[in-house]
Amino acid sequence: MDRERILLTPGPLTTTLQTKLAMLRDWGSWDADFNAVTARVRSSLLKVIHGEQSHVVVPLQGSGTFSVEAAVATVVPREGHVLVMDNGAYCKRAAKLTSLMGRKCTVLDFDEAAQVSPQVLDQKLAQDPSITHVVMIHCETGAGVLNPLRDVAMVCEKRGKGLIVDAMSSFGALPIDAREVRFDALVAASGKCLEGVPGMGFVFLRKAILDQCAGNSQSLAMDLYDQYQYMEKTTQWRFTPPTHVVVALAEAIAQFEAEGGQPARLARYTDNYRTLVDGMARLGFMPFLDPSIQAPIIVTFHAPGDSRYDFKAFYNAAKASGFILYPGKLTQIETFRVGCIGAIGRVEMQQAVHAVELALQELGIASGEPAI
Amino acid sequence: MDRERILLTPGPLTTTLQTKLAMLRDWGSWDADFNAVTARVRSSLLKVIHGEQSHVVVPLQGSGTFSVEAAVATVVPREGHVLVMDNGAYCKRAAKLTSLMGRKCTVLDFDEAAQVSPQVLDQKLAQDPSITHVVMIHCETGAGVLNPLRDVAMVCEKRGKGLIVDAMSSFGALPIDAREVRFDALVAASGKCLEGVPGMGFVFLRKAILDQCAGNSQSLAMDLYDQYQYMEKTTQWRFTPPTHVVVALAEAIAQFEAEGGQPARLARYTDNYRTLVDGMARLGFMPFLDPSIQAPIIVTFHAPGDSRYDFKAFYNAAKASGFILYPGKLTQIETFRVGCIGAIGRVEMQQAVHAVELALQELGIASGEPAI
Ligand SMILES: Cc1ncc(COP(=O)(O)O)c(C=O)c1O
Ligand SMILES: Cc1ncc(COP(=O)(O)O)c(C=O)c1O
Repeated sequence: MDRERILLTPGPLTTTLQTKLAMLRDWGSWDADFNAVTARVRSSLLKVIHGEQSHVVVPLQGSGTFSVEAAVATVVPREGHVLVMDNGAYCKRAAKLTSLMGRKCTVLDFDEAAQVSPQVLDQKLAQDPSITHVVMIHCETGAGVLNPLRDVAMVCEKRGKGLIVDAMSSFGALPIDAREVRFDALVAASGKCLEGVPGMGFVFLRKAILDQCAGNSQSLAMDLYDQYQYMEKTTQWRFTPPTHVVVALAEAIAQFEAEGGQPARLARYTDNYRTLVDGMARLGFMPFLDPSIQAPIIVTFHAPGDSRYDFKAFYNAAKASGFILYPGKLTQIETFRVGCIGAIGRVEMQQAVHAVELALQELGIASGEPAI
Repeated sequence: MDRERILLTPGPLTTTLQTKLAMLRDWGSWDADFNAVTARVRSSLLKVIHGEQSHVVVPLQGSGTFSVEAAVATVVPREGHVLVMDNGAYCKRAAKLTSLMGRKCTVLDFDEAAQVSPQVLDQKLAQDPSITHVVMIHCETGAGVLNPLRDVAMVCEKRGKGLIVDAMSSFGALPIDAREVRFDALVAASGKCLEGVPGMGFVFLRKAILDQCAGNSQSLAMDLYDQYQYMEKTTQWRFTPPTHVVVALAEAIAQFEAEGGQPARLARYTDNYRTLVDGMARLGFMPFLDPSIQAPIIVTFHAPGDSRYDFKAFYNAAKASGFILYPGKLTQIETFRVGCIGAIGRVEMQQAVHAVELALQELGIASGEPAI
């Protein structure tokens, strides 16, 4: 039986049928009806962060990484100097794309089992005044750490540095208030906590820095300033938009608003997270992170210590029960990850735990207890 | 009544319901089932150009322009020198993105109502041996000109220059045979003549030059070499793929193959084109291009000479009859465009002509005859 699986992956994730049904129609990308959809999406996105006064939002084709790269390319001048606060895989990727495009880049290392430290950032910025911009990942999806956005933003504001936030896996679920937290750019994407399908990202740009962004990007496709100017003038995207992805996002956002917006989504995901962690604990699985720094987005679990454990076999067994797990992204220890996001609730999380239990049995493993 | 319109635009275009229905499911981007879809798409694409021996194909998220930029960034070394043969809007865009990324770029101008000239190219390459790569647009969608791919490729091969072909609007419909025509890169996208939905492009890279591509790109997201290496190693995309767009493309390709592949598609589009041009001629509309250089992809028509003509009103009247037209892209004279591609046939083209006739009547215009 080839039933659709539930994705416990942090994007692509499980979307509602209603969201997917929005894709059963073709739209002219030059047509006013489609441009109205784009405009609606953009104004809804601004509301999520209360950014109507302070920010604009620019959608961009491609995956989330494209929007991170576009944000750095557009916001940081060519002679800028970027500090990336690194506590995981997505931080490392941000540093890599920054250096590759020719911007000076310094990496500030942190433990991947801990939050980045605003105090250490403050010291570093005091030591090296040549730094112009700071990049931070809000929820480091690699391990699942929630980083302290507000405190990092305060340090950047105090020191007069630009802040670029990758909020890919947190946007829509965790609170972000542009009236209280200052950032130059904040990046997210369609296929994460808004529960759309993947295929586009979007970047919030602070109005006060917009004019300085002209001419920064060496990439035409990723020039958010150019995309913004064109969109303001014509209401259209510069290049063919992923029309079906855009209308699916519009539909997903309508459901997001009907559910009660960010607070309601956070409540549902938090319940998913608790259901998952409690259920997994009964099976002997231990989360890798301290609960105090864990975002209710994705949970890294220690792999079972049993020598019969093999991720691929475990994955296939859970898949046979209808659930798609995610491999770990840590280099030192054996882990796997389970996402709490998507159009799923407590029932699905309970069933997911049950699927894990069956998978353990199939592998002949008594308990999920790690070796350590 | 809000019925779905037929898109006479050169991508996004009208797709079959079957293609859209493929999007009613969520796929894990890490899962073997999805990776098998990607592999199937890639091997089908290679067959379209008979490129199994000579080329690899690398899919890329984003619109077609992203793939053009990625092709230039990946294939042309940083100290390379690109010659862009320019007979229209998409040529100008290719030149712009090439200069912007810091590659030396020379533009060779041609009339937008004519093909580019292999003879003039040959002279230019003889004059300036510093040129390393040539960029040409196969079908210049701006006016609709079919450029002489085979002859340009022969000149490039003779002179030992790399050739990058933007075959966005021709791939799948016009014949391209990699066994007979040598190119380093050829670019197309999901939402054109393969009749998928927009959201990804793909680039054929010649195996013989692959190794030289390492490290050329200053963009991480657009590094096709990196994307290729990763895909070969893992069967996965580097960054989240537009899963729904990919499965829709797989379904669209299955229909393409069932229809009879490129020859059958060309036959249908040619019939669409004749039906359109003949019908429009009866209404007094004259194509802008000489038929000998016209691709059966998109037709530019002179706007009616009548002073009551206004594109917006004309567009809205045709839209009310169910057809989405496309504005002209020429700077000097007033034109509009009508696409011949998409999941449409003779009946739809006859109805489109009828819609244009009704639009003329609504505007109180007796005939489509141009002023000139
Ligand atoms: C924090 C973070 N940044 C960046 C990305 C990259 O996004 P994508 O895979 O869409 O390129 C992700 C994806 O999960 C993410 O979680
Ligand atoms: C020849 C050609 N090149 C490039 C493009 C750009 O593609 P996109 O709009 O998907 O970026 C198009 C789009 O129609 C095209 O026809």
